[in-house]
Amino acid sequence: MSVTYAAGFLAAGVTAGLKASGGRDVALVVNTGPHKNAAVVFTSNRAKANPILWSQQVITDGIVEAIVLNSGGANCYTGAFGFQTTHQTAEAVGAALEVSAGDVLVCSTGLIGVGGQDFRDNVLAGVALAVPALTTTGGDDAALAIMTTDSKPKKSTIDGDGWRIGGMAKGAGMLAPGLATMLVVITTDAVVSPGDLDTALRDATRVTFDRLDSDGCMSTNDQVSLLASGASGVTPDAAAFAKAVKDICADLALQLQADAEGASHEIHIEVVHARSEDEAVEVGRSVARNNLFKAAVFGNDPNWGRVLAAIGTTTAEFDPYDVDVSMNGVRVCKSGEPDQSVDLVDLTPRLTHVLIDLKVADATATVLTNDLTHDYVHENSAYSS
Amino acid sequence: MSVTYAAGFLAAGVTAGLKASGGRDVALVVNTGPHKNAAVVFTSNRAKANPILWSQQVITDGIVEAIVLNSGGANCYTGAFGFQTTHQTAEAVGAALEVSAGDVLVCSTGLIGVGGQDFRDNVLAGVALAVPALTTTGGDDAALAIMTTDSKPKKSTIDGDGWRIGGMAKGAGMLAPGLATMLVVITTDAVVSPGDLDTALRDATRVTFDRLDSDGCMSTNDQVSLLASGASGVTPDAAAFAKAVKDICADLALQLQADAEGASHEIHIEVVHARSEDEAVEVGRSVARNNLFKAAVFGNDPNWGRVLAAIGTTTAEFDPYDVDVSMNGVRVCKSGEPDQSVDLVDLTPRLTHVLIDLKVADATATVLTNDLTHDYVHENSAYSS
Repeated sequence: MSVTYAAGFLAAGVTAGLKASGGRDVALVVNTGPHKNAAVVFTSNRAKANPILWSQQVITDGIVEAIVLNSGGANCYTGAFGFQTTHQTAEAVGAALEVSAGDVLVCSTGLIGVGGQDFRDNVLAGVALAVPALTTTGGDDAALAIMTTDSKPKKSTIDGDGWRIGGMAKGAGMLAPGLATMLVVITTDAVVSPGDLDTALRDATRVTFDRLDSDGCMSTNDQVSLLASGASGVTPDAAAFAKAVKDICADLALQLQADAEGASHEIHIEVVHARSEDEAVEVGRSVARNNLFKAAVFGNDPNWGRVLAAIGTTTAEFDPYDVDVSMNGVRVCKSGEPDQSVDLVDLTPRLTHVLIDLKVADATATVLTNDLTHDYVHENSAYSS
Repeated sequence: MSVTYAAGFLAAGVTAGLKASGGRDVALVVNTGPHKNAAVVFTSNRAKANPILWSQQVITDGIVEAIVLNSGGANCYTGAFGFQTTHQTAEAVGAALEVSAGDVLVCSTGLIGVGGQDFRDNVLAGVALAVPALTTTGGDDAALAIMTTDSKPKKSTIDGDGWRIGGMAKGAGMLAPGLATMLVVITTDAVVSPGDLDTALRDATRVTFDRLDSDGCMSTNDQVSLLASGASGVTPDAAAFAKAVKDICADLALQLQADAEGASHEIHIEVVHARSEDEAVEVGRSVARNNLFKAAVFGNDPNWGRVLAAIGTTTAEFDPYDVDVSMNGVRVCKSGEPDQSVDLVDLTPRLTHVLIDLKVADATATVLTNDLTHDYVHENSAYSS
């Protein structure tokens, strides 16, 4: 049900000819109220796609009526024509729903540079098809329509105390911080102000999507939107709501990680006893981006030397000769020296746990990544995406 | 001839049992003078191998009698025992040559964590074999003995006006800045003071080895050494000598790039019209480290969107909508919009030229990298290195 699990939302996912595969490629999610509160977090990439530039304006007042998303083209680096396409898309949705185009978020995903006349025609045709297809059960179709190289749709739901929250996500490549190269739409029927939505969403993305660093590549089109209809009539406990947003973001992040392009391992890099959370993240990310380490995991080789070499490139406080590294529960390095035999480490399960103990202070963080595989190279060399 | 091209040097490369392949694995280069001047540049990785820690002390007075190098084990993260091994290695060389161990540089390369009793025994046996094998033509054997996953030795020579310079290098993986994960020994018979050697070497490595970023992974064992015997009796023109050092470093860097693990393309990323040289390097490096771009080049796909997405992650001054990108001479992106057809770009040659015009100011830099290939994944997953 994804984005239509909570009351007060309609959704549709239709086929507009954008995807060569002929699959659904335009999604529309509409908030039927009574509230139209929203918060959005955008990519930190300085090269921002046209839909990002547009949506950043839409969200300034915290009010969103609808969000329209397309796959099959990123509409990024497509010039003034591309921005006009985004504008026209919002106008078309606004006109059909009789709301202001200025309250319509737009998201695009696909190949950078795609955003010409054909793209515009297809997206606008998709809007025309999607509006009459809107239903209270359309969340599943919408989740299908935002997929690119994803092998499956990503959906999640959580029940609060008298309110619900649901969401969908897409993303399989360019998974890296700020955010993790994806589109995410989360909806709730709880009564929550735009400001509280914003706080909850930023707190959640900081420790979920921002900690997913599958391939170190940051997207130009990332957008995570949280829409609240208030249709339940229930004002949730703030902490409970914040936890639910964090939990649904964490669940969707794990689904993104599990479907990362070509991956054969999901790697959780847990850094403990760092001086600060930021330093723990920096250490985790340095390992997550080390191609040699990632290739070793693919080969089921517990190569802890590559972990330590990666840590050495950071600015985090640590003593290279007082650090421990464990892999899947076996401490292979103690105080910077070989400890238990690497032969004891079993890396055949998909889930891989790397524990790095910096022995400095009490901060901790976990960064999620994937291994570097032949399939990753194949998917990203054989096709343009 | 590599390190024995210049007068005043002896070298040897012997088989001591460190490499499973049975190849030569211990190299020794001796400066017979009359001068024993030297300069060394080390890895900037904070996790430094034992030979780095030792050699940093040796070079403080600018005097070096000999340098001993082994492949088949990095002697990094091997604890106090590993440091003692390095110390004993220098002592063994010093005793055999009747010089101070404190004037003997030590380098190791191979798997991190290897540095136990067997390693020590083999290295010391290698020293015992190498000393009687020293000859004025031993440079080729020495170049073979420092190879790890290299497919061929790297050697270069330059003739000055009455003086010579020669060098050898090893490195195929972990090629990234500070330095590019390698061992390099350069020798000259010119008369140059330690201070002038240091200046020339730092100026050269900054724009050569430090601009080689094959796989973003920084080593723990990098060391570039420059030894001057003064045997020619000629004091070179300072600018001519600096240029020769830069040229030999550039040539060796290109050889390292051409032999990078599994690569099918050498990619030269030229950034022009940047605000500063540092910003040009930052932009070039961001592209060099983008796995999606590197995989696209492997697939002969001129995916300029991935170039722009990478630039967007930097702090360099640029306008995302006023940047041009050319690939192998075809401008595929002009002012942030699609320009000439990507179908015009031929990426089948190994040599790939990416030109990024930031249109900000006059600084420029070129970063060297390689594509991300199946063979890279294979070499770094199927074997521990």
